[in-house]
Amino acid sequence: MPTIADLGENESLRRTIARLNLATSALVGPGDDSAVVVAPDSRFTVTTDTMVEGHDFKLEWSSAYDLGWKAIASNVADVVAMGAKPTALVVALVCRPDTDIEWLESFADGLRAGCLALAPDAAVVGGDLTVADTTVVAVTAHGDLEGREPVLRSGAQVGDIVAVAGTMGRAAAGLSLLLSRNKDAISAYDEVVGFQLRPQPPVAAGIEAALAGATSMLDISDGLSRDADRIAKASGVTIAINRKDLQGYEAILEEPAMAISANAFDWVIDGGEDHSLLATFPRDAVLPRAFKAIGEVVKKGAYRVTLDGAPLDEGGWDSTRD
Amino acid sequence: MPTIADLGENESLRRTIARLNLATSALVGPGDDSAVVVAPDSRFTVTTDTMVEGHDFKLEWSSAYDLGWKAIASNVADVVAMGAKPTALVVALVCRPDTDIEWLESFADGLRAGCLALAPDAAVVGGDLTVADTTVVAVTAHGDLEGREPVLRSGAQVGDIVAVAGTMGRAAAGLSLLLSRNKDAISAYDEVVGFQLRPQPPVAAGIEAALAGATSMLDISDGLSRDADRIAKASGVTIAINRKDLQGYEAILEEPAMAISANAFDWVIDGGEDHSLLATFPRDAVLPRAFKAIGEVVKKGAYRVTLDGAPLDEGGWDSTRD
Repeated sequence: MPTIADLGENESLRRTIARLNLATSALVGPGDDSAVVVAPDSRFTVTTDTMVEGHDFKLEWSSAYDLGWKAIASNVADVVAMGAKPTALVVALVCRPDTDIEWLESFADGLRAGCLALAPDAAVVGGDLTVADTTVVAVTAHGDLEGREPVLRSGAQVGDIVAVAGTMGRAAAGLSLLLSRNKDAISAYDEVVGFQLRPQPPVAAGIEAALAGATSMLDISDGLSRDADRIAKASGVTIAINRKDLQGYEAILEEPAMAISANAFDWVIDGGEDHSLLATFPRDAVLPRAFKAIGEVVKKGAYRVTLDGAPLDEGGWDSTRD
Repeated sequence: MPTIADLGENESLRRTIARLNLATSALVGPGDDSAVVVAPDSRFTVTTDTMVEGHDFKLEWSSAYDLGWKAIASNVADVVAMGAKPTALVVALVCRPDTDIEWLESFADGLRAGCLALAPDAAVVGGDLTVADTTVVAVTAHGDLEGREPVLRSGAQVGDIVAVAGTMGRAAAGLSLLLSRNKDAISAYDEVVGFQLRPQPPVAAGIEAALAGATSMLDISDGLSRDADRIAKASGVTIAINRKDLQGYEAILEEPAMAISANAFDWVIDGGEDHSLLATFPRDAVLPRAFKAIGEVVKKGAYRVTLDGAPLDEGGWDSTRD
């Protein structure tokens, strides 16, 4: 099996690009200095996110396909969290020079599958390939607001309902299972592990939330506690979460938690990477079916996020710490 | 001096963002899930480029400020090579957790200075910060075609003039000087070294070329030989370069070449990273002042790029090899 260094940049890229799906939004696709993408309402949204080997994933756990999928999923979530429709992505991959071309092709397959499953009108329209000892995937994703106003973090109003679309704590549970190295538990709960390796953000719920009048929204990438704090801070309010509304998320994770002596509630409250959507809605809004109320927005108090009235520490994930 | 791990992600980003210039094109700037950027002609161009420590730069040579500047310069060049005007960039930085906040602030200063000097209407509108043992800078840059058609690599026609805007071989000369570790030579030719550390792509020349009817264009990032080959391949033609037209570029580098026993012509023909523009123009076009003719487009022959009729090997830089 040839490595990417054997084949060189041009041929490695040619083989990769050949496996991608095509974006209807791309007037010029991969292969030139830049791609050209349509922006029907004369604006576009743009977000960038990086995954670093050892820090954000382990090659021992994530296949190349998984990694491609996850790169799409985590970035598409940041697009839909604005209420936008994903259109085009660019992917910069840094990998070892002795990487088999088959690994790169499988990574491209994961990119394609992630796009087709999560955002079928979107595709990878450009990229960059370079080598180093550490694998890094840096993705930038674009969206079309289709004439809507973007849903920011800063618009939450006192009296709003706080609601969540998507799973909570499952990706964190998957990570704990992998870290436990308990083969029986990993095998028994492989569906949970799958949420860590190939997240399933609730893509359609983003536009639904915007249409339903969401006043603020973000995707939960670093944990409910930390991401709720971001909305509270940006909006100058307190987010009051009701523990009873989290019981359903916790209950579904009790079994894997027991299997490895972990705490399911910690996963729900501090676990990121499900890339679910956290949004606030006016009290009289009709919540889209994908959303479940978990609390309310109250006047800014001594704490930015509370759980049953008690302060909730800003736990979760900080990308600047090992 | 606190490190970024001491301060955490939120505070480190806050301090960085505070130092950036503002983009007139940004409807929503840094700090939300996505930025929102204007696209006046309902299209945008997008390009991504990665710089990896050890492979593309050494922290021993490049200051944080240099690195910020170079990240902007190399990406802005890919925007203007389409004939577009740079509007907005996003920057993903991976650095060591023990990085001083001062380093990060200086990097942001380099980003701002690069934007203000090279593309004053553009700015960094978003980013990502994460940690690893290797420093990686991944930038994605966007442009506005202002109603023009993009200038692709594939449009060169037989009979066209081949022309270059910007310096040739200077960044490669600077790299050779740094690699020589000859302190006297480095000091004597610090201006040449400056082209390696802080490239000065001929930004205005990109739009000028598009307006003058350029049939193909790219930025020379991997060396004239390799990048001319890319146009020839995409356009199905042969690029015939005249050595005498390269003499001026070579002559100006003879002194530093002698100082470290290097070959100035190799720098001119195989050296990338000046991020100059290589374009083809119809024979009757009036070349913009920034461009100098160096050859012509001829019918596809046995070799894709020739120098005085002899085959020119595809030298230059391959990003997949160490």
